[in-house]
Amino acid sequence: MNAYPPILRDLIRRLSKLPGLGEKSATRVAMHLLQCPREDAESLAEVIRQMRDRVRTCPRCFHFTDGELCSICADPARDTGELCVVESTADLLALEQSGAFRGRYHVLQGALAPLDAVGPDDIRIRELMRRVDEEQVKEVIIATNPSNEGEATAHYLLQLLKDRPLKISRIAYGIPMGGDLKYTDRITLERALKGRQNFA
Amino acid sequence: MNAYPPILRDLIRRLSKLPGLGEKSATRVAMHLLQCPREDAESLAEVIRQMRDRVRTCPRCFHFTDGELCSICADPARDTGELCVVESTADLLALEQSGAFRGRYHVLQGALAPLDAVGPDDIRIRELMRRVDEEQVKEVIIATNPSNEGEATAHYLLQLLKDRPLKISRIAYGIPMGGDLKYTDRITLERALKGRQNFA
Repeated sequence: MNAYPPILRDLIRRLSKLPGLGEKSATRVAMHLLQCPREDAESLAEVIRQMRDRVRTCPRCFHFTDGELCSICADPARDTGELCVVESTADLLALEQSGAFRGRYHVLQGALAPLDAVGPDDIRIRELMRRVDEEQVKEVIIATNPSNEGEATAHYLLQLLKDRPLKISRIAYGIPMGGDLKYTDRITLERALKGRQNFA
Repeated sequence: MNAYPPILRDLIRRLSKLPGLGEKSATRVAMHLLQCPREDAESLAEVIRQMRDRVRTCPRCFHFTDGELCSICADPARDTGELCVVESTADLLALEQSGAFRGRYHVLQGALAPLDAVGPDDIRIRELMRRVDEEQVKEVIIATNPSNEGEATAHYLLQLLKDRPLKISRIAYGIPMGGDLKYTDRITLERALKGRQNFA
């Protein structure tokens, strides 16, 4: 590393702090940035800076937006009365890419994690309850992750919502498409059995 | 992707063009840049821009530098008369990190590749010959990669250098430390046998 000029070492150090990049991949990216057309490197730097100025969270659903409301909240066609609750924007994106949901989302920006001192006031649960009361929500679809935190959050939301006059559902957890029962872990099999559906 | 603001999509697109990053890892990095402390994202942008202004190649050995000569060429302690010829700065760095070489380098910035129309004039061979003639070079150590291009380059250099009054050597290619003969490919085994050394 000492054979590199200090600014290059600094770049590699900063890049290697990014998620998924270690020192080797950071060095590779730095070499690329050094050798690619100059305007490519400069526009990347510019976009990183501008992005921090322009992108904020949607005040309604806490998804990212560069305007007032995010593109999903601003789209009247998505006012279906279905509200899908996810932990993070990345989860929202995964669902969006599937194209299977045409309603709106609510991003909790986290999940309940008592061991890490993340309680109901630390994630966007209060805002969710306000939306449920103020918007024409007919169904809340809980789509938290099948982890301890996601489960805890789902059960907490169920308790909060169960007395309201709306449908509450949860996405299905089970064997993934292309999966193989003999290689599937015990807990997933248990969930798949519990969630079995009758042939119509 | 369409659920993201355009500037974020632009950032993800640019990041996913970096070596080793696909769309998923680029998205993860973009999310991190959006959520990390603002000054971290801004300094990364700043360092990428400054690096392009400050870093150039050493006019003597073609390694990266931010000064006149690179740190290795500028270090009088490394004037050992040994000149190690590598294809790229990344190869130089790997050798530097091993700590096994205390002489100077010459970075070819590529290797001969007739099929891709990379000939002797496209890489820093002329500059190497000038150094061999002008500097007090006692030994040229060829450390090109064991690929078709690296082999071709090594043989070409050998032809060019063989009539000069200096030692020409080539780093050893063989079984890597921790390797296992039974899992080693045929060509490596052949090289390892060819390169066998007598017990002293």
